[in-house]
Amino acid sequence: MDLNEYLIPPTEATRRRGPHDRIVMTSRIRLARNLKAVPFPGWGKKPDRIKAAEIIRPAVESLPEMKGCFAESLDNLAALDKQLLVERHLISREHAAKGAGSALVLNRDETLCFMINEEDHIRMQALLPGLQLKEVWGTISKVDSRLEKKVDYAFTTEWGYLTACPTNLGTGIRVSAMLHLPGLVLAEQINQIIQSVNKLGLAVRGLYGEGTEALGNVFQVSNQMTLGETEEAIVERLNKVLSQIIEHEENARAKLLEKKPKMLLNQIGRAFGALSNAHIISSKETMNLLSCLKLGVDVGLFPGVDRTLVDELFLITQPAHLQHNSTEKLGADERDLRRADLLRERLASVSRPLAELPGSPEAGGEAG
Amino acid sequence: MDLNEYLIPPTEATRRRGPHDRIVMTSRIRLARNLKAVPFPGWGKKPDRIKAAEIIRPAVESLPEMKGCFAESLDNLAALDKQLLVERHLISREHAAKGAGSALVLNRDETLCFMINEEDHIRMQALLPGLQLKEVWGTISKVDSRLEKKVDYAFTTEWGYLTACPTNLGTGIRVSAMLHLPGLVLAEQINQIIQSVNKLGLAVRGLYGEGTEALGNVFQVSNQMTLGETEEAIVERLNKVLSQIIEHEENARAKLLEKKPKMLLNQIGRAFGALSNAHIISSKETMNLLSCLKLGVDVGLFPGVDRTLVDELFLITQPAHLQHNSTEKLGADERDLRRADLLRERLASVSRPLAELPGSPEAGGEAG
Repeated sequence: MDLNEYLIPPTEATRRRGPHDRIVMTSRIRLARNLKAVPFPGWGKKPDRIKAAEIIRPAVESLPEMKGCFAESLDNLAALDKQLLVERHLISREHAAKGAGSALVLNRDETLCFMINEEDHIRMQALLPGLQLKEVWGTISKVDSRLEKKVDYAFTTEWGYLTACPTNLGTGIRVSAMLHLPGLVLAEQINQIIQSVNKLGLAVRGLYGEGTEALGNVFQVSNQMTLGETEEAIVERLNKVLSQIIEHEENARAKLLEKKPKMLLNQIGRAFGALSNAHIISSKETMNLLSCLKLGVDVGLFPGVDRTLVDELFLITQPAHLQHNSTEKLGADERDLRRADLLRERLASVSRPLAELPGSPEAGGEAG
Repeated sequence: MDLNEYLIPPTEATRRRGPHDRIVMTSRIRLARNLKAVPFPGWGKKPDRIKAAEIIRPAVESLPEMKGCFAESLDNLAALDKQLLVERHLISREHAAKGAGSALVLNRDETLCFMINEEDHIRMQALLPGLQLKEVWGTISKVDSRLEKKVDYAFTTEWGYLTACPTNLGTGIRVSAMLHLPGLVLAEQINQIIQSVNKLGLAVRGLYGEGTEALGNVFQVSNQMTLGETEEAIVERLNKVLSQIIEHEENARAKLLEKKPKMLLNQIGRAFGALSNAHIISSKETMNLLSCLKLGVDVGLFPGVDRTLVDELFLITQPAHLQHNSTEKLGADERDLRRADLLRERLASVSRPLAELPGSPEAGGEAG
């Protein structure tokens, strides 16, 4: 099956909605699992990894949740396809780099994804738009129980689920949310928030996870500890912290609207001006400017403009998506030209932002 | 008389045309003269300066070229008015700072201006749009001869006209042109040109003369030596060098259009985007962006847009002009807001630049 025919078109994918999705882009939970009978991927030889995949893949594909899924060995995917999957946050950068034995199983609506032979034999993840950690937990937990009846997990009563890295030992869970926090960044409160969140034992990372930059004012918040707490307690704790971050972000936006409206109008206006007039633009600059544009849509400066336009641009201006839509092989310089062409074209019909902020910060955006 | 009622409105002032005025903004010649009978301004006491003004002012006002002129002591001009005159390049920053005895006489069409008691007793200057040094010399030379019949200049056959500073001794002439050189700046050839021009004994300065920055890619080129050469020879020499600089600038533009069209489109597009969408903008950024916009008009990216729009914005976004058009006293921060409002308002009706450069670099601009 061709991955590109399988993947949901960006326009459609970005149209999905969830609670608080002006701030919480996605909620995600991944579980790390390993087979008892096969050496873990990093330790095992190639035949071990192939054996693990042969056990896991049919078991996953037979799950009712995975009906009509896309399943493929990473060996059979082009580098570009793998990069597309990374840009859509469906597989990790690390997984994209794996070879023999590594595979991917993705369900029809892209809310469930299994990485086979990443760092662990199984990395399964569920994701939903907006703040829906409990729903995501309900899904992944059910899937995990079903799979556990089909394959023999490495598990001890003393340590829980065994994982390649001790930081995942026990529950093997990572609960995370991807947050758009331009208000806290512009109000220069973001470092304070990150420090507080860190003190609560949670990690704050950039757009593509561990060790990546917070491009486009997008931050991932996730649990660090996987041992000594139940999954429900971890989900609950993260949920509480996320609710607080949402409140802080909303307060920061409200305060900026009240105290520094001109600064806000200036940032948003200039972002729109650059995006709709550049002829050369990098991926990094694009993401940072689109973040401002999205904030502008959220605060009602672009009446009639749907936020999905910005979300879609966020996705399709990334390197693999740009390459995917081109017939020739593009170098980095050519991508910077195509990206600018695409942005100008898509923003051609968008009128300049309002010169004044609407009376209420809620105007123009939908309820969170 | 109220200076503001006297001054030609910016819209009208910037509509004037001259040869090569896409590149040569103005041609200017000033002559330094002193009275024989009165100590020079920097040496004389206040009564000396007043005495000099009492001799010079009526003599100047009675010149046929100065019919209907504006004449005023600097003491009687508000600081804002003096700043307005500086922004219009009618008086020097130094002259604006002078007090008792210093005065200004300006003719009706602002092509002739006398500074009384600047560094010298008399600094008279003539200016015209475009490259018209010979015409300017014809004017100022005639005026100087007429004035010489009315007042007794400090002059020796050995040294020529005596001046406060030895660098002006002899002819007392400074021939200069204000050049818009965005092509040479973007092509990174400007420093080379400046060095070559310096080697020819000419000075290259910024927008407001000696010791000022080349804001908005505007450069002043002028003679350094005033001794040992006739005025006609100096004018001729400058004329030749200016013709070469014009050629270099045109070549630089043509080469950019041919070799780096995307870079050019990017610079011009982004300048337009920022100018038409900012809510806070400094004078310096404005001048630099307007320079790009002007280049965009010159190369035909804004069909239907008259370059005078840009020239006018260049003038009216400067601090004193902004303040002049406001009823309240503006601080620097408030000016940055007003400037942005003014730019957005004036550019609201301007369509985004063409996405492609027109076939010929001459399209859209008038012949130079």
